[in-house]
Amino acid sequence: MSETTDFDGLEVGYDIPARPGMDETDIQTPCLVLDLDALERNLRRMGDYAAAHGMALRVHGKMHKSADIARLQQEIGGATGICCQKVSEAEAFVRAGIDDVLVSNEVCDPVKIDRLARLPKHGARVIVCVDNADNVADLSEAASRYGTQLEVLVEVDCGQGRCGVTTPDEVVALARAVNAADGLAFTGIQAYQGTAQHIEAYAERADMLDRVVAQVKDVVAALDAAGLAPGLVTGGGTGSFYLESNSGVYNELQCGSYAFMDADYGRIETPDGARFDAGEWEYAFFLLTQVMSHVKPDRAVVDAGLKVQSVDSGLPVVFGRDDVEYISCSDEHGVVSDPGGVLKVGDKLRLVPGHCDPTANLHDWYVGVRNGKVETLWPVTARGKAY
Amino acid sequence: MSETTDFDGLEVGYDIPARPGMDETDIQTPCLVLDLDALERNLRRMGDYAAAHGMALRVHGKMHKSADIARLQQEIGGATGICCQKVSEAEAFVRAGIDDVLVSNEVCDPVKIDRLARLPKHGARVIVCVDNADNVADLSEAASRYGTQLEVLVEVDCGQGRCGVTTPDEVVALARAVNAADGLAFTGIQAYQGTAQHIEAYAERADMLDRVVAQVKDVVAALDAAGLAPGLVTGGGTGSFYLESNSGVYNELQCGSYAFMDADYGRIETPDGARFDAGEWEYAFFLLTQVMSHVKPDRAVVDAGLKVQSVDSGLPVVFGRDDVEYISCSDEHGVVSDPGGVLKVGDKLRLVPGHCDPTANLHDWYVGVRNGKVETLWPVTARGKAY
Repeated sequence: MSETTDFDGLEVGYDIPARPGMDETDIQTPCLVLDLDALERNLRRMGDYAAAHGMALRVHGKMHKSADIARLQQEIGGATGICCQKVSEAEAFVRAGIDDVLVSNEVCDPVKIDRLARLPKHGARVIVCVDNADNVADLSEAASRYGTQLEVLVEVDCGQGRCGVTTPDEVVALARAVNAADGLAFTGIQAYQGTAQHIEAYAERADMLDRVVAQVKDVVAALDAAGLAPGLVTGGGTGSFYLESNSGVYNELQCGSYAFMDADYGRIETPDGARFDAGEWEYAFFLLTQVMSHVKPDRAVVDAGLKVQSVDSGLPVVFGRDDVEYISCSDEHGVVSDPGGVLKVGDKLRLVPGHCDPTANLHDWYVGVRNGKVETLWPVTARGKAY
Repeated sequence: MSETTDFDGLEVGYDIPARPGMDETDIQTPCLVLDLDALERNLRRMGDYAAAHGMALRVHGKMHKSADIARLQQEIGGATGICCQKVSEAEAFVRAGIDDVLVSNEVCDPVKIDRLARLPKHGARVIVCVDNADNVADLSEAASRYGTQLEVLVEVDCGQGRCGVTTPDEVVALARAVNAADGLAFTGIQAYQGTAQHIEAYAERADMLDRVVAQVKDVVAALDAAGLAPGLVTGGGTGSFYLESNSGVYNELQCGSYAFMDADYGRIETPDGARFDAGEWEYAFFLLTQVMSHVKPDRAVVDAGLKVQSVDSGLPVVFGRDDVEYISCSDEHGVVSDPGGVLKVGDKLRLVPGHCDPTANLHDWYVGVRNGKVETLWPVTARGKAY
């Protein structure tokens, strides 16, 4: 980090945590580090799985928020498209050249609808979810105004109690409204059960998904009977994709976290009853931190607190170490228990964040490392894009 | 938000949530809104309190991360300087013209020490904390290299178990080392008890601070006896400043959250046993959100989730409403219970975030409003500055 330039008398060039080619040991902390080998193995593993099960793989870009990683998922990870949650995220991905984007969410604000309706003019296939008829009319009016076409999924609430309609009749009514609306095309249904993803016991997840699959089959049967056979039946995440992909009714997965993994997903069970992090999926996403104080013999203070990680799903885990433990988090500090007194000021630790999505959103850069060297810096393209 | 320009065929100008002069009702959600009248009243109230108690007021910039608000605190809020927690925050504030900055934290990394030692060249008084002798030597070497002077506070751990030394002997030994070191000046001690700030019962906070004050008096007596009388005895926060300012030993406060307030601080007691939000301090900082789905009669889904707020200190509170409640938070959604079915898609709500500091860090802009109009947009100057 020695090369800097001068700007208004103040050095700049310090706002990036690393430079390609530098040793991993010289990366400035706290920052996000990606193990590129592990990342690429995770991407290929999911791509191979989806292909082997005849499923399309629409990777969830709201997890990593990175156009570079989305492109890598298309190149080596079998991604057939991406999804995201916000119009501003979709704009960022389309601007970066991603040409098949699902906003896996309702878009109801007039300004956001206007922006969404303009996106197809830039060469992208744009898909959005709906759960009410007024929204269908608003989307149609905007798409007609710009002479574009928006593809529409009816969102099915399969137990999470968030967005989406519940009964086959409601789904068919909305599908009919979409089908009849200028500028819109009925493309299918989204049935994503977010609650199921993080349940540790695989059997409990399977029971929940059995109920979801039964509901989705009823919905698809009703749509077929109405002459509105869905092209896409999309859903599934890192915790449940085994189940949707063997359901016989879903044809597209929306997995996101598998690419990075986090401490919360690391604890859940695979179908074999192993921990997710026992080999099937690898930790590729780390928060690099440094010991900044060690006055007490049995505890170190590190420079990674709430400014650089979200603890909504629990505290981070120190990667590859069972002799030290991250035990408390404040705004700018973390306390690491060090019963053996093995850490010293300046030591660096890799933390596995509790929750990857909101942690990635706190950073401007991913530092990609391989064989101990910094290979690349990728911007967090859709960082902070919430509109 | 209708004016946009064209960039590589994609409209831009959507990355700001509002424009000065627009009606408050047209602000894009989710975003941070500041009630400028309430903010200014909070700033004046704390400035008047500090002046009346003969205390310097070094406002904590790591809370708002905004150079504009720091300047306003100097102009109308009696701020005598600012503090922050990271070298990159200090660089951002100095670049914005703030000329008295305390990094209220240890800086041990060689690259960060190098940057810190260069800052005084740009016209700023720069103060930093230490808690070990090796760090004193490293700071001295860097300041000597650049021909600058760093002022140094010895950090006292007054019960939080984080950074800092504990005994008067340890403090005196470090003060002597600083005093003897080229390029450094011993300026005093920092004794901040972060744990105390959020204790709801005032009596419990007062008991904890009684022990802190006794410890600090012992430390100051030892420094006086050693001929190292501290110029600054600094500490105190929004939850405890009443106590440091009446201690007879502290001479500077480091309050931050009083300017914005948040739901966590709103619950604690004033010395009179009233809630903090019952009049003494006003909510000035809001997360504006919009209802995006309302399929279930008794619950609305809003567009503010973990991407735009930190829930480490609890869920947000819906401002000015007792008929609806924010009951769950996921990455991009919030669920609001609406037993009376009074909300509809498109309605906007002001949320009081659970914790202001990490929530501000998720946004690029503050939208300042007054009398129903957008008056100003302020960048979150030190957003994401964690190095």
